[in-house]
Amino acid sequence: MNSSLIPFFKPQGVAILGASSKPNKLSYGILENLLKYGYQGGIYPVNPNAQEILGVKVYPVLVQVPEPVDLAVVVLPVGMILDTMRECADRGIKAVIIITGGFREVGGEGVEIERKTLDFARAHGMRVIGPNCVGTMDMRSGLNTTFIKGMPPRGPIAFISQSGAVCGGVVDLILESEIGFSHFASLGNEMDVSEADMIAYFGDDPDVKVIAIYLEGVQDGARFIAEARRVSRIKPIVMLKAGRNNAGARAVSSHTGSLAGSYTAYQAVFNQTGVIEVETLAELFNVAWALGTQNLPTGKRVAIATNAGGAAALLADNLAANGAELAELSAETQTSLRLKLNPSAQVANPVDMLGGAEPADYLWSLEQMMRDDNVDVLAPVLVPQALVNPLDVAQAWAQAAAQTPKTMLTCLMGELSVREARSFLNKAGIPVYQYPDQVGPVLRAMRAYGEYARKPIHKPVEPKKAHKNAVRGVLDTNTGKLSLGEYETRTILDAYGIPNVPGALAADAPQAAAIAKEIGFPVALKIVAEGVLHKSDAGGILLNLEDEESVRSGFELLTNRIRSQYPGAAIAGAMVEKMAPKGLEVIIGMRRDPTFGPMMMFGMGGTLVEQLKDISFRVAPLSLEDIQEMIDVTIAGKLLKGVRGSSRADIEAVQAAIAALSQAALDFPELEEIEINPLVVYPQGQGALALDSRAVLRPS
Amino acid sequence: MNSSLIPFFKPQGVAILGASSKPNKLSYGILENLLKYGYQGGIYPVNPNAQEILGVKVYPVLVQVPEPVDLAVVVLPVGMILDTMRECADRGIKAVIIITGGFREVGGEGVEIERKTLDFARAHGMRVIGPNCVGTMDMRSGLNTTFIKGMPPRGPIAFISQSGAVCGGVVDLILESEIGFSHFASLGNEMDVSEADMIAYFGDDPDVKVIAIYLEGVQDGARFIAEARRVSRIKPIVMLKAGRNNAGARAVSSHTGSLAGSYTAYQAVFNQTGVIEVETLAELFNVAWALGTQNLPTGKRVAIATNAGGAAALLADNLAANGAELAELSAETQTSLRLKLNPSAQVANPVDMLGGAEPADYLWSLEQMMRDDNVDVLAPVLVPQALVNPLDVAQAWAQAAAQTPKTMLTCLMGELSVREARSFLNKAGIPVYQYPDQVGPVLRAMRAYGEYARKPIHKPVEPKKAHKNAVRGVLDTNTGKLSLGEYETRTILDAYGIPNVPGALAADAPQAAAIAKEIGFPVALKIVAEGVLHKSDAGGILLNLEDEESVRSGFELLTNRIRSQYPGAAIAGAMVEKMAPKGLEVIIGMRRDPTFGPMMMFGMGGTLVEQLKDISFRVAPLSLEDIQEMIDVTIAGKLLKGVRGSSRADIEAVQAAIAALSQAALDFPELEEIEINPLVVYPQGQGALALDSRAVLRPS
Repeated sequence: MNSSLIPFFKPQGVAILGASSKPNKLSYGILENLLKYGYQGGIYPVNPNAQEILGVKVYPVLVQVPEPVDLAVVVLPVGMILDTMRECADRGIKAVIIITGGFREVGGEGVEIERKTLDFARAHGMRVIGPNCVGTMDMRSGLNTTFIKGMPPRGPIAFISQSGAVCGGVVDLILESEIGFSHFASLGNEMDVSEADMIAYFGDDPDVKVIAIYLEGVQDGARFIAEARRVSRIKPIVMLKAGRNNAGARAVSSHTGSLAGSYTAYQAVFNQTGVIEVETLAELFNVAWALGTQNLPTGKRVAIATNAGGAAALLADNLAANGAELAELSAETQTSLRLKLNPSAQVANPVDMLGGAEPADYLWSLEQMMRDDNVDVLAPVLVPQALVNPLDVAQAWAQAAAQTPKTMLTCLMGELSVREARSFLNKAGIPVYQYPDQVGPVLRAMRAYGEYARKPIHKPVEPKKAHKNAVRGVLDTNTGKLSLGEYETRTILDAYGIPNVPGALAADAPQAAAIAKEIGFPVALKIVAEGVLHKSDAGGILLNLEDEESVRSGFELLTNRIRSQYPGAAIAGAMVEKMAPKGLEVIIGMRRDPTFGPMMMFGMGGTLVEQLKDISFRVAPLSLEDIQEMIDVTIAGKLLKGVRGSSRADIEAVQAAIAALSQAALDFPELEEIEINPLVVYPQGQGALALDSRAVLRPS
Repeated sequence: MNSSLIPFFKPQGVAILGASSKPNKLSYGILENLLKYGYQGGIYPVNPNAQEILGVKVYPVLVQVPEPVDLAVVVLPVGMILDTMRECADRGIKAVIIITGGFREVGGEGVEIERKTLDFARAHGMRVIGPNCVGTMDMRSGLNTTFIKGMPPRGPIAFISQSGAVCGGVVDLILESEIGFSHFASLGNEMDVSEADMIAYFGDDPDVKVIAIYLEGVQDGARFIAEARRVSRIKPIVMLKAGRNNAGARAVSSHTGSLAGSYTAYQAVFNQTGVIEVETLAELFNVAWALGTQNLPTGKRVAIATNAGGAAALLADNLAANGAELAELSAETQTSLRLKLNPSAQVANPVDMLGGAEPADYLWSLEQMMRDDNVDVLAPVLVPQALVNPLDVAQAWAQAAAQTPKTMLTCLMGELSVREARSFLNKAGIPVYQYPDQVGPVLRAMRAYGEYARKPIHKPVEPKKAHKNAVRGVLDTNTGKLSLGEYETRTILDAYGIPNVPGALAADAPQAAAIAKEIGFPVALKIVAEGVLHKSDAGGILLNLEDEESVRSGFELLTNRIRSQYPGAAIAGAMVEKMAPKGLEVIIGMRRDPTFGPMMMFGMGGTLVEQLKDISFRVAPLSLEDIQEMIDVTIAGKLLKGVRGSSRADIEAVQAAIAALSQAALDFPELEEIEINPLVVYPQGQGALALDSRAVLRPS
């Protein structure tokens, strides 16, 4: 546990710099919250123009605040920040929360002040949360440095947010529902303390059972990956990512002044580090609450007990859409259900006890279901009825839950008449959802976490010996040129042991014929000319040349054609390549993500690439499991395994090519993109051949 | 307007048959509701054992109830239903709501009683809602025949539900929010009055602005299509379909005893009839409420005004994911925004007025945005803050809304502190959502309805002349055989003008060679043998035979191979077919849906069919627009149009083939399935060829 962060949550004393006596000021709200929720340490408002606020003695200057004081909450204008930092340093305070906005997020001078503040903090060994944040809450120590109205009850969820407003909204949303939290941390601009710091801190705090995050962007990709990977093994991390598409990214950018980065890379990273991603804010807490209160499901078979067939139908639809299924209740279970339920009740799953279902009916049904080995998850559903008290039903559910380790997720499909019952269930640690369609995503997330937890520890694929000097040669001779064609890229592939289709560059027609003769007919000719981007669209490719004469005349034809169409193109000659036998065409490649580094890709190759969008991504370094997964999740991967009687292709050759390409990307940071399309894959044991490739270098 | 349904909503007098004086009985709740909400007609409880309930005179028998009485609500046990129907008939009552359950949905004797009740009603010109339902509400007449606690305020939405419990849940969910309804109709088992009846009725009622439906299954597919298509032109129909996958269908089936049918067919029908489908119950009312209160959006460009960047980022993500986009605010708009907003505010969309945003800031922003021609939709967002009163903000939004015809969809991201503001906005007819991610689906649905409303009226493609006798011949000679191979199916295609690859059936090797010589080399041979299902897997196909000798020996090879592998197979010979030139392979076909009839399909053909699942569906009869759409939405359709320089294929030939196949399906109800895979499509003007086909007949 990083002890430098402890004072943000469990300080011995807190100074409020900029404490105001006016109730319409944020600092007034902060003092109120510090006083209100049981925090036992010292509380020291600082303001040269006040004696007492809310009955608390005010200090004119920080230096007069008595020991111990180890946290400062700053609500002073941006122009006073640097002086304030110095005062804190003088007083020996190493933890500062800057609530004030007007830094990097507004651009201009704000950027400069933020940089200076950070330099000062670094130089003096101080940690800073913010600026432009709403502070922290710790439900154990009772500390609340925010001005948010209300504080959630104590519970399992630590919430990290890059938006202060989202913190406030969340409190307002969940307060009445009795969903419990251990911490809130609003990080604002993340000048110093980052989401990765907080993941690490909460990961090590036994008070935290699950970490929920509202994320706009990651500062340090490698650090995030390392901490998320480590902590995911200890407890679940549930993530809501904003800026998932261009519009969202633009909104994030205008919000924080930082770039959202490539969402594709984020998804790959979440996948590889066990971070459970959700789609909506409601889902963030629906999922976190279930992970914080319930055991992980032992499987995907759900038993439903309902008083309303329609609600059960919606739930069944939703479960199936989220990869779960209806449990097949055993004959014994169905027989015992029949013993006590309404004779018209349905005792096959979903168990429909009809509108008049009483609390005792629910208890009986749940007790039978929990004993059935075919059942992994219990899902009771109540739609409020005129003659049944929802609270009584909730109590029956809780009574059942206490008897079983099986996951229980419940639905009270109402609002007005179920508020009390909902609070009761949440308080009892039984997640309750308002709509049946909220249950499926929760179960899917719980199962995803369970699957991750069972995966072997990430172990990067062992690097193979590579001829790095050959690659260095290509890169060094191509200074100033950012786009590498097949001719140069082949060398990189060769150096990493990825087999290219046999071929060589011919400078003139006789040489082309000689090369063709050597590698064997039929051959293809491909123009090599700077300034000609799409060889194929430009008519720069000839296929299936069967003899030396065709190669000679083909060479002339190609070069003349390109010369007349692209007068400025520098023609280096043509690649003469053996026509490769047909096989399954896949694409493998790499695009370097500014945040997370080399993002590897795999999918269906050839001409369908753009239409199918059958591409999976993972960030290097890759483990063998990463590579297997990225192949398995695509249609291309299914075809590699063989469909409808076609034989299994050489998947190992594809795996090796992906591993080798990722190694090249890790070895040579100047490679910005590299792509093999198509890599033609042959039947098992017969390998794969790169038929075309290209690369892009980083502008230096 | 179907006048026989009027008494269910605006009766002159209501009799409650089975009225109880016990407050824990459903009928007591019904009487309470009839008395409570301003219904002005006569209310007549009937019960031989009571004098007065809730201050209302009770009649011992129906015949003593004074005129006028035109609606009976029946809460008597199932065993008394037939007698009760007779009493109603005797009293001249033509409209009966049967609340009681225990009919078809429980199976056994219940099925029989339901059938007899229907027969009686039909014979006596009576209409019945239910059984197994919760009745009706009419917010104009104040009639409430349900026992549901609470009645929503009057508004634009008519709600049709095949689940009574869902009606009750919905009232509980929305009651406090001030979302307004015109009617509730719980249809239960739909013994007589069906969802199509109600769609027609509400379609003709000017009090109804939008129809919302919870649907489990359709009784009469053709009628549903006709009414939905007609009414969708007048007002939107928003649909939540339960039983969308196997699990849901199983739940629906155990709920109502009816089959959910093929969801694929439902989706096709919704698409073709302009029914707007939603995913969740919350979305059903989110969408209906917006359609009922707001103008349709003029486009997809949304302007956001927010006090919280995080919430705006989530909204922007969600809008883009739902096909909308952020409006580019004009320079003028941005300049005027700057005039009054906080200098640190972002004036590019999303307009982020920062945490301290006041009601006046919202009003100013919305006024500037509404005047911007680049803006189609206004989306103000408030996350509750310590120092701003949400109700004041809501009033500013309403003030802005009153000044513009543009669509306004709002978000109050909170619960506790925004309840009052939410009710205020809904009451003012301004839809308000709790989470930013609820806005996008609403806008998508509104735009989908707008698009449908602009489509031309559905006009089935003109049937072409077909040789029906030839098809009749094939069907008649294949009695008892359900599976038709290519040999028989070719005849059907020929009869409808769909070009087959040239070829003919050869009974022996010499005949095969003769046919090959006539149609020209190279040819393919395909075994024709009953009992051999997958010719290709069975090794029953030879390709690229170049001369007569290869054809002869090929024929012997094929027949010997099949004879030895499938000793029981009846070998009729082999099809000799010309090898067709390469082209784009698509699949077209038909599967007859038990509810909706011939469901046509189109998509990518060949070996990728199962992996890609690139198939679209529409129910015949098809309009030309249907055919164009079903091609356009697939990847195959995009490839037909030409990608990356490849030329446009003969889309007209594909359209003609789909039209012809749908005509065959309409002409011959005994065709259960028919499929052409592949149909090879050539460049524009060069047609398409059926390379293989098969059909399945209906068991007689």
